[in-house]
Amino acid sequence: MAERQDGTTAHAPGSVGALGEFGLVDAVVSRFATTPDVLLGPGDDAAVVAAPDGRVVATTDLLVEGRHFRRDWSSAFEVGRKAAAQNLADVVAMGARPTALLIGLGAPADLPAAWATGLADGLAHECALLGATVVGGDVVRSDTVVIAVTALGDLEGRAPLTRSGARAGEVVALAGRLGWAAAGLAVLGRGFRSPRVLADAHRVPDPPYAAGKAAALGGATAMLDVSDGLVQDAGHLAAASRVVVALDTARIAIDQPIVDAAAAFNADPLVWVLGGGDDHALLATFPPGTPLPDGFVAIGEVTAGDPAVLVDGAPWAGPAGHDHFAR
Amino acid sequence: MAERQDGTTAHAPGSVGALGEFGLVDAVVSRFATTPDVLLGPGDDAAVVAAPDGRVVATTDLLVEGRHFRRDWSSAFEVGRKAAAQNLADVVAMGARPTALLIGLGAPADLPAAWATGLADGLAHECALLGATVVGGDVVRSDTVVIAVTALGDLEGRAPLTRSGARAGEVVALAGRLGWAAAGLAVLGRGFRSPRVLADAHRVPDPPYAAGKAAALGGATAMLDVSDGLVQDAGHLAAASRVVVALDTARIAIDQPIVDAAAAFNADPLVWVLGGGDDHALLATFPPGTPLPDGFVAIGEVTAGDPAVLVDGAPWAGPAGHDHFAR
Repeated sequence: MAERQDGTTAHAPGSVGALGEFGLVDAVVSRFATTPDVLLGPGDDAAVVAAPDGRVVATTDLLVEGRHFRRDWSSAFEVGRKAAAQNLADVVAMGARPTALLIGLGAPADLPAAWATGLADGLAHECALLGATVVGGDVVRSDTVVIAVTALGDLEGRAPLTRSGARAGEVVALAGRLGWAAAGLAVLGRGFRSPRVLADAHRVPDPPYAAGKAAALGGATAMLDVSDGLVQDAGHLAAASRVVVALDTARIAIDQPIVDAAAAFNADPLVWVLGGGDDHALLATFPPGTPLPDGFVAIGEVTAGDPAVLVDGAPWAGPAGHDHFAR
Repeated sequence: MAERQDGTTAHAPGSVGALGEFGLVDAVVSRFATTPDVLLGPGDDAAVVAAPDGRVVATTDLLVEGRHFRRDWSSAFEVGRKAAAQNLADVVAMGARPTALLIGLGAPADLPAAWATGLADGLAHECALLGATVVGGDVVRSDTVVIAVTALGDLEGRAPLTRSGARAGEVVALAGRLGWAAAGLAVLGRGFRSPRVLADAHRVPDPPYAAGKAAALGGATAMLDVSDGLVQDAGHLAAASRVVVALDTARIAIDQPIVDAAAAFNADPLVWVLGGGDDHALLATFPPGTPLPDGFVAIGEVTAGDPAVLVDGAPWAGPAGHDHFAR
């Protein structure tokens, strides 16, 4: 911004400040498709979204620049996809069908308008993978970029798949990737841009969206989104269900890019696989003998006892997972 | 925070950093009541909220410290009430019944934990006025305090009251206060703490919650929440309905505290009343001859023509309202 003679400020051409609040809203809203679930889209005091089940699943996340994403590591499109994905994955982890997102964007006045529209394109792209869309939002000024995402979903008549339904004797199964985002963070954090597949995995997760509904239809008794690390999130399931989750690392595939990067960085790949977050795999439990739905692999069992996670029979000594206030 | 010998940092006692993410979540979640609408509350990947109508009303706002509130002007409890109120008012402005809030909190590690719990108490208090509650959220670290609020509501079988239903010949009516928050901002901005009623009106709005459903049941054809200033928000209604909103200032009461403060500050009270935001009054239109529901006063009429707002027959020359990217 340049200070002008009259004491007001002129915003840089192409910035969100120059576009203004309402110009910015118009520019991003045009990015969002409509779907049969959108009964009233952006532009009113509130949106109206179909909730045919008579219940609505709702979850919210806040992403802060420098903590959850870096503009020099990820494009706006990638940040948009990631912001949408982590909330869509939470809805999917309840066994629900995501319907709609609401977005709050805090932006500095000098943020390029193209960044904001790129973000919108990323949000729209990720939503479209699931037939969802963005139905509303808010744009305000802030010193750093802040993105608030709320996702809504419909249970289609099914019971929600909570964390508390696991019982001793059941099978612990996993769908999706583990360790990729953590390995990608290690790559980017060391100043590298490759292996590209790992850096990209940090930028945009690849949650096993289809596996959520498959688990709900396939008899899962509990499920959660692995966002903070397998051991930590398994601990949440163990605590909520009051069971022991016993993981068998021999049954957890460590993908080749993880093995290779760990060798290059002299790191333990299992630390990324068991402790790394942000891949948004799905961890679920199934009664013994249940054929596992497509995408799920058995990686352990539920046993009785004080809530705990065991890795190959013992508490895990590695980093436990993510605390947003820890250093 | 103090740097420790082992390279980690120690958080100040009583700070959210010392409490940690999960300790903080536990501390605030205990503040939130349950209601019959809460089918699954905080603690899982997502909440499940009743949506008996089969549609859900949803709106979101982002509040940034230093722009939307100041910790030296408002208590955490007041910030919580305000954050809830402005979202609840948006749901009410659709003619819906608010059911649930989701909250994203970005907080510096040195934020006193008592501030976070005070915020939660304020959110809970304001929700309780309407039988709503907080069902979920997210806590992350950020340099300044950021609060993301999403509100959900149920239409109870009624059509949503949008901005686009006004027709020429109808009555324009207002429920709630105007100019109070703007006058309060002027008071606080000049370093005063009184008149207390005005400073308090800036800290916590007093939306006419009951008038929303009354308007919906009483035949309103359009309605919106006046958050950015009467003239600006009337302009949104005019644009969406493709009508002229003609306001008659002789019918808009200017409350005595506003008159007195304007006199003391040598200000024009009408600028606060027509241009000031944050009071969350409700502006609605009704077919001619409709008995106005409790709380509503006629302040103008809808006429045909290119979308515009007229104040006593002419465009208003005062500050038009709020652009979040303007200075």
